Amino acid sequence: MKALIYHGPGKKNLEDVPRPALREATDAIVRVTKTTICGTDLHILKGEVPSVMPGRILGHEGIGVIEEAGAGVSRFRKGDRVLISCITACGKCANCRRYMPSHCEQGGWLLGHTIDGTQAEFVRIPFADTSLHLIPEGADEDSMVMLSDILPTGYECGVLNGAVKAGDTVAIIGAGPVGLSALLTAQLDAPGKIIVVDLDDNRLEVAKQFGATAVVNSADGKAAEKVLALTSGKGVDVAIEAVGLAATFEICQHIVGAGGHIANIGVHGASVTLHLEKLWSQNITITTRLVDAVTTPQLLKSVMAGKLKPKPLITHHFPLGEIIKAYDTFGNAGRAHALKVIVTNE
Amino acid sequence: MKALIYHGPGKKNLEDVPRPALREATDAIVRVTKTTICGTDLHILKGEVPSVMPGRILGHEGIGVIEEAGAGVSRFRKGDRVLISCITACGKCANCRRYMPSHCEQGGWLLGHTIDGTQAEFVRIPFADTSLHLIPEGADEDSMVMLSDILPTGYECGVLNGAVKAGDTVAIIGAGPVGLSALLTAQLDAPGKIIVVDLDDNRLEVAKQFGATAVVNSADGKAAEKVLALTSGKGVDVAIEAVGLAATFEICQHIVGAGGHIANIGVHGASVTLHLEKLWSQNITITTRLVDAVTTPQLLKSVMAGKLKPKPLITHHFPLGEIIKAYDTFGNAGRAHALKVIVTNE
Amino acid sequence: MKALIYHGPGKKNLEDVPRPALREATDAIVRVTKTTICGTDLHILKGEVPSVMPGRILGHEGIGVIEEAGAGVSRFRKGDRVLISCITACGKCANCRRYMPSHCEQGGWLLGHTIDGTQAEFVRIPFADTSLHLIPEGADEDSMVMLSDILPTGYECGVLNGAVKAGDTVAIIGAGPVGLSALLTAQLDAPGKIIVVDLDDNRLEVAKQFGATAVVNSADGKAAEKVLALTSGKGVDVAIEAVGLAATFEICQHIVGAGGHIANIGVHGASVTLHLEKLWSQNITITTRLVDAVTTPQLLKSVMAGKLKPKPLITHHFPLGEIIKAYDTFGNAGRAHALKVIVTNE
Amino acid sequence: MKALIYHGPGKKNLEDVPRPALREATDAIVRVTKTTICGTDLHILKGEVPSVMPGRILGHEGIGVIEEAGAGVSRFRKGDRVLISCITACGKCANCRRYMPSHCEQGGWLLGHTIDGTQAEFVRIPFADTSLHLIPEGADEDSMVMLSDILPTGYECGVLNGAVKAGDTVAIIGAGPVGLSALLTAQLDAPGKIIVVDLDDNRLEVAKQFGATAVVNSADGKAAEKVLALTSGKGVDVAIEAVGLAATFEICQHIVGAGGHIANIGVHGASVTLHLEKLWSQNITITTRLVDAVTTPQLLKSVMAGKLKPKPLITHHFPLGEIIKAYDTFGNAGRAHALKVIVTNE
Repeated sequence: MKALIYHGPGKKNLEDVPRPALREATDAIVRVTKTTICGTDLHILKGEVPSVMPGRILGHEGIGVIEEAGAGVSRFRKGDRVLISCITACGKCANCRRYMPSHCEQGGWLLGHTIDGTQAEFVRIPFADTSLHLIPEGADEDSMVMLSDILPTGYECGVLNGAVKAGDTVAIIGAGPVGLSALLTAQLDAPGKIIVVDLDDNRLEVAKQFGATAVVNSADGKAAEKVLALTSGKGVDVAIEAVGLAATFEICQHIVGAGGHIANIGVHGASVTLHLEKLWSQNITITTRLVDAVTTPQLLKSVMAGKLKPKPLITHHFPLGEIIKAYDTFGNAGRAHALKVIVTNE
Repeated sequence: MKALIYHGPGKKNLEDVPRPALREATDAIVRVTKTTICGTDLHILKGEVPSVMPGRILGHEGIGVIEEAGAGVSRFRKGDRVLISCITACGKCANCRRYMPSHCEQGGWLLGHTIDGTQAEFVRIPFADTSLHLIPEGADEDSMVMLSDILPTGYECGVLNGAVKAGDTVAIIGAGPVGLSALLTAQLDAPGKIIVVDLDDNRLEVAKQFGATAVVNSADGKAAEKVLALTSGKGVDVAIEAVGLAATFEICQHIVGAGGHIANIGVHGASVTLHLEKLWSQNITITTRLVDAVTTPQLLKSVMAGKLKPKPLITHHFPLGEIIKAYDTFGNAGRAHALKVIVTNE
Repeated sequence: MKALIYHGPGKKNLEDVPRPALREATDAIVRVTKTTICGTDLHILKGEVPSVMPGRILGHEGIGVIEEAGAGVSRFRKGDRVLISCITACGKCANCRRYMPSHCEQGGWLLGHTIDGTQAEFVRIPFADTSLHLIPEGADEDSMVMLSDILPTGYECGVLNGAVKAGDTVAIIGAGPVGLSALLTAQLDAPGKIIVVDLDDNRLEVAKQFGATAVVNSADGKAAEKVLALTSGKGVDVAIEAVGLAATFEICQHIVGAGGHIANIGVHGASVTLHLEKLWSQNITITTRLVDAVTTPQLLKSVMAGKLKPKPLITHHFPLGEIIKAYDTFGNAGRAHALKVIVTNE
Repeated sequence: MKALIYHGPGKKNLEDVPRPALREATDAIVRVTKTTICGTDLHILKGEVPSVMPGRILGHEGIGVIEEAGAGVSRFRKGDRVLISCITACGKCANCRRYMPSHCEQGGWLLGHTIDGTQAEFVRIPFADTSLHLIPEGADEDSMVMLSDILPTGYECGVLNGAVKAGDTVAIIGAGPVGLSALLTAQLDAPGKIIVVDLDDNRLEVAKQFGATAVVNSADGKAAEKVLALTSGKGVDVAIEAVGLAATFEICQHIVGAGGHIANIGVHGASVTLHLEKLWSQNITITTRLVDAVTTPQLLKSVMAGKLKPKPLITHHFPLGEIIKAYDTFGNAGRAHALKVIVTNE
């Protein structure tokens, strides 16, 4: 089958490799019909995720059709259309049982990381019963792909951890796909104001179309002052960090009001400065989270009900044969005005 | 001044009475500019609320302008435009401090009940600092009147107590003003489906316009079966009782799914049958609540942000001089296609 | 093997039957070393649980040793000492994933109900990985048996559902094993006062030894008045119903204070009267629950830490060969001063 | 009257000053019968709290008797015995209404900070109705002093913010009075293990007497490794920082397990390093809080019920005339084996 292989920093190739086979009774083999590329895949290609070994098939998002189900799989059978969760969950360990499969003892983020992933014609899914979701009749397939990772990431790490509630003032730092996903899902909780901060005016324009009530370009280094001005100096109820840099985490610390929340989504490569000399008395809550994807069934309901509309996140489509081009487009998102790209295999 | 006086069961009159004066330092006198009529006022007129004595000025909703503030009032001064809460809160007692001013030791529901109310040119508001809210610049005044009682009632007793969350299936039994208020405020939490049940097709049509995703006419006694059918037999996540009768509470018990909520808003005049022989094992939660109006500031933000639009609740306007006609209209809501009526004094 | 068989209302027998065998890959066969008898077993014997068919081996509590584990069992192997949960959980269905395995699509209360139970030398446990718990080194075995059902029942249905918090005043209606279990586990949340109500002075004496701060004998029909007097007329924060009768649920409605909780544990055979004509405005919460046993790992930690001491719940021991005598003792608990009886098979 | 006056860094004096008088109708004058010294008072004396101006009477804790109540005070009258909250709450502003009076628009930490405090014969208490608590009959007076600040600080900033629950493993870094207060109040939630870390063996010995299940001396710089070893490498559920230094916050980051909480109590004078490069994916929650003292009524119930016993926190007593000596003792806590010192004025 065709698959996108990582060959060490800076190297990737679409090549023919053997199809995966069942290894455990709880595995399923899924024929991938649509997948996508995540910012994390770009990090891997830069060599920033050393736990990914050369030879690995990348990709942890996608939908497909059950090709073969192990004897221990009871919830799915050949032919079922399924949504692949970016988090593999054994469903049995202490962390799975406390809604935290991101830290599953045998699972967690495996696909395209420590086992082969979804940017291929077929993928082996361990613990299929607790790591796949049935796609309902009538669902839009492109939208389903957004439920593998990016929507639960924005919702769980940003919106739920930030405890967004009706009437709140929310700031989202970063208007890339993850920030926009937080922006979309935040609206499930009806905040009064959503201020989006980014360096790129195009992205800010997109943020407005996605529901931002105000946007702030941070290129002049005055984002914090501008956000504070928009809140009459009181600061925001919730600051969502969707970049992963010290500078953006710094903005969050400046703009969060007393009693507020800083919800970190960004993947950080270095430590940051925490201003406890100011914040110790400000009654704030800071959260971090690797997405657990436990809200996927709930978000799926919201998509089916038309309350959550992920399609605008998708800007480009490519066949699997052109996945290298898809990577180029996604990797130059600014120039290409790209958000998420769908890679189709049909 | 003109005021609508209750003279015992079946008797009311608009007449001239002395203007109220300050009694305590924490009082304010408010010149009422807009008020409305509540279903509770109709109950009072039927003699069903014996704690209301003849001679009482009715009304517990409205907005106005501070005419005079006692020496102990620090948050408002003459000329401020204010929203009157239906719940008077001392702000100091144990119940006020646990967000339950409905059971305030000195307050609670006083206006138009145990002290004179708002269906008059002026009203005395005890504990003004904690029982009034400043109306922001640019607010729609009619919408503000809906924040005195009906919106917090739907939201607190129905939506919050029912723990509505994104993707849920919610049923609202009763499409009168209170049920519609639950319907409007439930949408702040983005449920997937909202099924509204009522006897009246006109009201059900209105419910659709207010955002119901399905409606069920209960006239044939088969409402429960129909709601269950709409949920593939699983039952609803949240059943909101917005009528106050044994029969409607019975429907709620039939349609609530395992793990679900029954949130009672209705004012009940008689006991009901609770089917613990079935429900003991169904992991359900039943709540009751006299509105606390503690969410009014939050709902005010939602209205100002355009996330909550209460204007469609208002179907009629009358000057204070025609309040008897306003009562007739509201009292014959079905025939008049009336929801809330605004009574203006300007 | 020896097993206690139900032969229809009023009939039970200890007899030799074939040992159970694995049926599914996710099954385990457990050699039962200790079991106990539940009030529910007595209900079954009275014919009040028609879903139990004649020929059934009774019992849903106990500990033992893994005799054989199916190919799909990954967390246990032959020789492991295990605690058997009264609730069988597939770990995969929507209800299991929302912490509600009592309503598991394939599990729930199966043992000694719709499949053979633990009052035998061996028992087949479906979904063993998610329905058994490893017994830690050094654990007291009798105490472990109390974690199968009665402690999580008291804690989940009574204490957690009742939202008991430090300083609260709690009333527990019924001082049988379930009420005493609520009494023990309530103390994990440090309520200020715990008032226990029962008809039997001996039981009330036991309740005092278990930590009740006051006891009320309800034989004179004045329990509610007495409890109210103990709370200066304010009512309790939490009323826990641990009997299952209309009369005891009635007491709960009388004694619950505004803003309080009624947590039902009792198994009710008939409907009750709910006084919504009074309670509609009292901001109360009523909960029901079939135990989910999801807190067993947490309670196990509390037992191992010495914070929860269940041994006093155990009053009698019998070998499996004398289980009929054990039933007699438990069935005449009042006369025998019996709480829980341990039935040992070694 | 006698009062302890701050005269700038390093300078304090007990001198005669005029008695305070009522300024606002909502004020009360309290004759202070017992007060104490807080670590914050030592910070002030080192000049580290520049908002405290020379000439200020120090002290924000204590109990006393109402000497005079303003016309606007309704809950207290001359002669009432009262507990003084370290946080002054207007009870009316948005922050007071969301249980966060630490950030009250007109109140917050005022006593011994921006207005004269309690280390004097008399003190003026603004917003007396919402800033004092009635002392119940039979209460131990020394214990009541512990409810002004230190117990709610340990409970709110450490235990509640840390979300301690039954069975948890908790680490408390710092065994000074604040850490010990967290240790005492944590036991209201029945954690399974409480590990206390400090540099001083004497304090660790005290911690054991207060209920620590394990202690770790951090003098060798290996505290984190030792705590991890005590948790089989998994890390703690809750790490409570009760010192206020970068080094101790660093320990917390090392020992917190996935899904855990870091609850900061310490007053930090400098920023710290936050290891987001590791923690971004660890699903942790970090909280900060200036005590709100909103749990004082609840803790008062727990003290009266005997569930919380603060007396061992008190090691020394001095008359007001010897308050300089009391400061010496408290300021050399290590040498003097001092925890809290009571200063009496009778």
